[in-house]
Amino acid sequence: MSNLIFNFKDKKIKNLKNPKNILGGKGANLAEMGRLGMPVPPGFTISTEVCDIFYKNKKKLPKQIIKNIQLELKNIEKYTGKKFGDLKNPLLVSVRSGARVSMPGMMDTILNLGLNDQTVKALAKKTLNVRFAKDCYRRFIQMYGNVVLNIEGHLFEGMIDNHKLNKGVLLDTELDENDWDELIQRFKDLVKKETKKNFPQNVLEQFYGAVSAVFLSWESQRAKTYRKLSQIPDHWGTAINVQSMVFGNMGNDCSTGVVFTRNPSTGENIFYGEYLINAQGEDVVAGTRTPQHITKKAKAAANSKETSMEEIMPKVYQELKRILEKLEKHYKDMQDVEFTVENKKLWILQTRSGKRTSEAAIKIAVDMVKEKLINKEKAILRIDPNTLDTLLHPTLDKKVKKKIIAKGLPASPGAASGKVVFTAEEAERLNSVMQNTILVRVETSPEDIHGMHAAKGILTARGGMTSHAAVVARGMGRPCVSGSTEITIDYSNKEFKAGGIIVKEGDTITIDGASGEVILGTVPTIQPKISGYFLTIMNWANAFKKLKIRTNAETEKDSRVAREFGAEGIGLCRTEHMFFDQERILSFREMILSKTKEDRSKALIKLLPHQKNDFKKIFKVMSGLPVTIRLLDPPLHEFLPKTQKEINEVALSLKINSEEVKDRIDELHEQNPMLGHRGCRLGISFPDIYEMQCEAIFEALFECKKEKIKSVTAEIMIPLVSADIELKILRSLVNHIAKKIQKKHQTKIEYMVGTMIELPRAALQAKEISKYADFFSFGTNDLTQTTFGISRDDSGKFLKDYINNRIFEIDPFVSLDQNGVGELIKIASTRGRQANKKIKLGICGEHGGDPKSIEFCAKTGLDYVSCSPFRVPIAILAAAQAELKKLI
Amino acid sequence: MSNLIFNFKDKKIKNLKNPKNILGGKGANLAEMGRLGMPVPPGFTISTEVCDIFYKNKKKLPKQIIKNIQLELKNIEKYTGKKFGDLKNPLLVSVRSGARVSMPGMMDTILNLGLNDQTVKALAKKTLNVRFAKDCYRRFIQMYGNVVLNIEGHLFEGMIDNHKLNKGVLLDTELDENDWDELIQRFKDLVKKETKKNFPQNVLEQFYGAVSAVFLSWESQRAKTYRKLSQIPDHWGTAINVQSMVFGNMGNDCSTGVVFTRNPSTGENIFYGEYLINAQGEDVVAGTRTPQHITKKAKAAANSKETSMEEIMPKVYQELKRILEKLEKHYKDMQDVEFTVENKKLWILQTRSGKRTSEAAIKIAVDMVKEKLINKEKAILRIDPNTLDTLLHPTLDKKVKKKIIAKGLPASPGAASGKVVFTAEEAERLNSVMQNTILVRVETSPEDIHGMHAAKGILTARGGMTSHAAVVARGMGRPCVSGSTEITIDYSNKEFKAGGIIVKEGDTITIDGASGEVILGTVPTIQPKISGYFLTIMNWANAFKKLKIRTNAETEKDSRVAREFGAEGIGLCRTEHMFFDQERILSFREMILSKTKEDRSKALIKLLPHQKNDFKKIFKVMSGLPVTIRLLDPPLHEFLPKTQKEINEVALSLKINSEEVKDRIDELHEQNPMLGHRGCRLGISFPDIYEMQCEAIFEALFECKKEKIKSVTAEIMIPLVSADIELKILRSLVNHIAKKIQKKHQTKIEYMVGTMIELPRAALQAKEISKYADFFSFGTNDLTQTTFGISRDDSGKFLKDYINNRIFEIDPFVSLDQNGVGELIKIASTRGRQANKKIKLGICGEHGGDPKSIEFCAKTGLDYVSCSPFRVPIAILAAAQAELKKLI
Repeated sequence: MSNLIFNFKDKKIKNLKNPKNILGGKGANLAEMGRLGMPVPPGFTISTEVCDIFYKNKKKLPKQIIKNIQLELKNIEKYTGKKFGDLKNPLLVSVRSGARVSMPGMMDTILNLGLNDQTVKALAKKTLNVRFAKDCYRRFIQMYGNVVLNIEGHLFEGMIDNHKLNKGVLLDTELDENDWDELIQRFKDLVKKETKKNFPQNVLEQFYGAVSAVFLSWESQRAKTYRKLSQIPDHWGTAINVQSMVFGNMGNDCSTGVVFTRNPSTGENIFYGEYLINAQGEDVVAGTRTPQHITKKAKAAANSKETSMEEIMPKVYQELKRILEKLEKHYKDMQDVEFTVENKKLWILQTRSGKRTSEAAIKIAVDMVKEKLINKEKAILRIDPNTLDTLLHPTLDKKVKKKIIAKGLPASPGAASGKVVFTAEEAERLNSVMQNTILVRVETSPEDIHGMHAAKGILTARGGMTSHAAVVARGMGRPCVSGSTEITIDYSNKEFKAGGIIVKEGDTITIDGASGEVILGTVPTIQPKISGYFLTIMNWANAFKKLKIRTNAETEKDSRVAREFGAEGIGLCRTEHMFFDQERILSFREMILSKTKEDRSKALIKLLPHQKNDFKKIFKVMSGLPVTIRLLDPPLHEFLPKTQKEINEVALSLKINSEEVKDRIDELHEQNPMLGHRGCRLGISFPDIYEMQCEAIFEALFECKKEKIKSVTAEIMIPLVSADIELKILRSLVNHIAKKIQKKHQTKIEYMVGTMIELPRAALQAKEISKYADFFSFGTNDLTQTTFGISRDDSGKFLKDYINNRIFEIDPFVSLDQNGVGELIKIASTRGRQANKKIKLGICGEHGGDPKSIEFCAKTGLDYVSCSPFRVPIAILAAAQAELKKLI
Repeated sequence: MSNLIFNFKDKKIKNLKNPKNILGGKGANLAEMGRLGMPVPPGFTISTEVCDIFYKNKKKLPKQIIKNIQLELKNIEKYTGKKFGDLKNPLLVSVRSGARVSMPGMMDTILNLGLNDQTVKALAKKTLNVRFAKDCYRRFIQMYGNVVLNIEGHLFEGMIDNHKLNKGVLLDTELDENDWDELIQRFKDLVKKETKKNFPQNVLEQFYGAVSAVFLSWESQRAKTYRKLSQIPDHWGTAINVQSMVFGNMGNDCSTGVVFTRNPSTGENIFYGEYLINAQGEDVVAGTRTPQHITKKAKAAANSKETSMEEIMPKVYQELKRILEKLEKHYKDMQDVEFTVENKKLWILQTRSGKRTSEAAIKIAVDMVKEKLINKEKAILRIDPNTLDTLLHPTLDKKVKKKIIAKGLPASPGAASGKVVFTAEEAERLNSVMQNTILVRVETSPEDIHGMHAAKGILTARGGMTSHAAVVARGMGRPCVSGSTEITIDYSNKEFKAGGIIVKEGDTITIDGASGEVILGTVPTIQPKISGYFLTIMNWANAFKKLKIRTNAETEKDSRVAREFGAEGIGLCRTEHMFFDQERILSFREMILSKTKEDRSKALIKLLPHQKNDFKKIFKVMSGLPVTIRLLDPPLHEFLPKTQKEINEVALSLKINSEEVKDRIDELHEQNPMLGHRGCRLGISFPDIYEMQCEAIFEALFECKKEKIKSVTAEIMIPLVSADIELKILRSLVNHIAKKIQKKHQTKIEYMVGTMIELPRAALQAKEISKYADFFSFGTNDLTQTTFGISRDDSGKFLKDYINNRIFEIDPFVSLDQNGVGELIKIASTRGRQANKKIKLGICGEHGGDPKSIEFCAKTGLDYVSCSPFRVPIAILAAAQAELKKLI
């Protein structure tokens, strides 16, 4: 029974390894403040273990625990001199939930517990304030009725409002003791009506009712939903803090307030908070009265005329200031503190690390290092890498009202407004006349890439967080809302339906890739600021991290953006993306549709100079760094002509009729293209394609050398290998072309050959495969698809259900599935290094930009991760954190 | 150097562990016959290791080996008293290839080596037969010229034909010594012209030329192709046997022949062979003269008038008879023996296990057990399980000439003729008027199943050995040729092209599912006989095997066939196949297209009685055995209406318009259905479907119980699980329905719940998953697809290239990939049993009928395999062999 009930002054607490796990965040802090000598109302914590016992014991408390709780109640009585249910000096307590991490507003709290028809009189007598006592009692009935007895809150509120109307007053403060008396009676009647029982007069019955209700609120729908969203495990449970009540509503020498030790929005090192005279905590939160500023400075900044706490209660303010400074120093973090002043005496009810914007988080962390409060390591660990996203993309101005017409998945952050277009061509056309567009498609394909570039944002009706649209959009840094099943697109009429609204081509919409919202009309956006603090943190992170951070990029522009963000090379350059350009697609189609090797050769010769120039541009940007180039990977039919016009065009070029072209297109059709004729299987079937690509790479390298540009290390990557012999064959193809080009120019060209590990079999056969590989790059997108047997293009239909039902804790395309896919990565890393000690290991799936996955990569001992340009800073920070966590 | 050169009498041979690996099959047998005191011409074997050395030494023999060979040549000289190149008593030798396993006709042989312009005279003098000597010499030049000097054989043959024409004779025997003289000169001139060198007169030069040529023939195109087809590893190499020549062509007291100790076609225990008087071995094979029977009995049986060897050479025949009996007893197997009689002296040139039909193989094995020559274990191991196929399916009459118009993959054995139809409906229509049809489709889908049932055979233009068409056809026992890329189907004109020929609907074709041939017109077929010998072998096999053999079946008929063949239950009953019936498909479509749970319920209620009755029928057939029922697995859109008529039908039933139906169809479309919304994902999204299926199962079980039919053990299988929680959820769904039905009927129903392991993640998570599973069934089709990332529907495009190029040794959909997929099965088995010792493990993919895969399953310790009904006997035999091999 040692870990069940803790007095705030319990000496055991100091020895607890993870006090928050046992006591909850609030309880741990109360205990800690107690130890620091802060003015904390006496009380105790019922631990999270009791929550577990409660649920296992048919939602009842075992007798032994009840006994222990009663002992602690006695302790409070001893300390305060008050007695629970006493008719002279009654003890009132608060019963509050307190989980390991804060779940603001999700869980229940009961104040003023201990009042009944008798003790309320004693309280009135003792405080010499009848109105206050009655007010407390009605609050208690109201709260208890709602939380413990499940009576809807608006029924109580309605009675108060009615009463005020009848009396012709506006504010609660205008109600007197008689009003409360009347209302107390009505409240009790309501309780009787709703529960068929009288409002409990026995204070212990009240107490255990409250404890049960708080435990039960852990399983309330809103709490469950919140945990799902915040990835808080269900089994943690909540602790309960029982504390002697203090009152901020006993008169005008009382007040209650909330204060942050720094500005949680900007990070500025000034107090930031608000208070209310003669009020209880709930009044501050409820918003029925407008709270006032704490400091004179804040009051001045807000141009407010109301008196600040600093002015009206200078002595208490000075004490609060000392305590706030002490708390921040103690916790070494910005604190969010609740306080109450009862008859000029300051009580601290709660302290916790304050939530803050990412901008503030960075500034506070850097400032605290400067103030020598924390070291750089702590500063780095303080910042949630995922929040950096918001610093890099434009966001919607939150102050503006929005007409949301649909929601989808927040696939690529940032916000954008533009005219609705339904084709890539229209997006390009409007872009050329300087008009912003949002490309709306059922789903996108590689052919839409030029349109996605031209558009300011992308909205799709199908596809998940890692659908084509999502991945490409993130890569380009374009905002994207994907898989918005609420919209129905009608291409033929050039419109889409969302709810009851029809949006036509040319209408303006705004999408918010951070929230997944689709909004009618234009919403103003705020441009990202990359402040000096951000750079400072990045520099520190770079010094700590061991993983190299590369980027996935295949254009000069993306490469440049990534390098500016700190990328240390390219981990994935998808060569096929280079073929979608207007000039090239025709030649590429000719190549695919060739019946003979000769025809194919002609087409390949046309493509070679384009590809070479693309590589050269990228090599120049990435000078001095490694660049991994993946040879052609996707199934060929992705590139096929679709319209009759395109078919005719190709037929003309190939000098065959369009029927033959159609036949060939039909032949190339696949049932499951993801598992079809793609990757190295294309290289085996059509070696001339890979030969052309290698030639382009080597010629580009040679030209850079000739122009005395510091060389990149070209890492040629063979995709979709499942057996060592595939790589053996294609490695010798690469070597053969290298020799040819070296001989031609009489010069040496440096390069490596490796493969993607993106099939379970490749992972299992890593030992054999590594004999032919200078590097492995884990293609975790495809590896996740095959390990789970889930197509990310089709996962939208059920993955949401899976995550909502917690079948998957998290979308495995977003954060690496460490149990399944992760085990394959570990197997492949171990086996690969067994046979080839020098092998370089990296990851180039979408997971390369996910902090949890990056931590896994660091633990597994990979050499680098590669992610989309806009996630490079996130990856850098996450990689640094991963190293720092190893030391903890 | 100890394993390089072996005299036939070498004592070392007896100590060799695997003499065939070193000496080749022929060499090992020659040595063995030598030891047995048989009349074997003296000689030696150059081992397979020398072949390896030869290739590693730039295709030359190292000096030391040459020295050793010369020592052995001296030994032959000593033994025969003849000398190599001697002008009085010249030694002639044969140089023959001899690999580990026989590769008939693939590798080169040179006879009569040692003849030149001088020794030919000595030979003539010594044999007193000038014509014979000259004939030998011209044969030698001809053979050597062809094999060693690479001169095309027809050039020599042409000269002989010309000469005969000029002389006005028909047979070689009509040519005299002068004719041969003239031809020898012309042959030598030809050699000079073609090689710019004289025909080698130095006998040692001849000898080493021959040895090199034989080694080189290992890498000839035809040898490589043969090895590929027969799965013989390239690295084995060939041995070479050098043997003193004996002559069957020295006069009429000479002969040569080939004899089997039993009839290789029927297995009957009588000699079966043929011989030629005054001839060399090649004459028997070449077919220029018609050989005669060996025994009087055979002569009589064949109604031949030519004298048998038994009559014409009674003494030699008796000696041969003794030797044949001795050889068979020694080798304990039917022998295929080559012999030569030289001036009444019998020489045995070669013995080996004779090739035989599967029918003969079974009879011989059973007979030999009765004769106490071998035990039952050996008998079982003698039979290649795969050949049993030919005993179960009708085959084409080989004597009839065929017009082959295309080839495809031999996807399902058996042959069938019928009218070409292009739709399942037409197949059904013609079937109802008793007409045989061949269903020709680009590929088939589950909707074609009724047509596949109605047709006598299936031909597809796309899809591999495990495509839908192939799998279903094998399951039904329907012949099928799949992936015949040589045909082009034109549905609109109801015809297909093959080569230049156009085949219209209604034209008759024949398909041979054993060879993959598509033949114009009708070819008569031979019906399978299951003889008593076959049953005997099956009974023996059943006694030895440990694996249980189940079948994949979902109809009463298939279940019955399988049980007759010895199936011990059903390992996979695919419930979705039951929905394709005309009556049901509409209800099923209603269900899929329902927008609300209520509409879906209505459709499900209609389906329930059908499904229940189907189960009941199967349960009756399988009474007393386990039946594994897989709940709905494939993506729903496979079932969708396709034609406008079907769409209207569904729209009418659902009381919505057809546009809405189309929209819903579009919504259900998937990019990669194999990785989409299917398997247990359907059960999670639409629990009511699985609930209906469980209800049908439990009601069927209850009704069987009520009718006092011995119960089956129903094993309810949840497909496509990737995480334990999926199974946890669905297991409780099953239990919930079970409770409901048990309560309804106040009776207890026995059942188990398990899952398919068909995703790599499921294999890796087996420990967690096994907590909720009574059994695992490895779905190796899908597991192969995901492990390799290869869709079997699309693999046709490249898998053939992969196998031809030996990137894959064998199609992983045909024989289990033991390295990759096999490792996952081992991992899953180990981990599954770790957490659940009682778990039952089986396999239900196509591999369940593949002998090599079955051996793997036995080694891995699975409990059962499940295969299509027609493969049950194969599986039984393979399972017995697997156990017996463990003991070796």
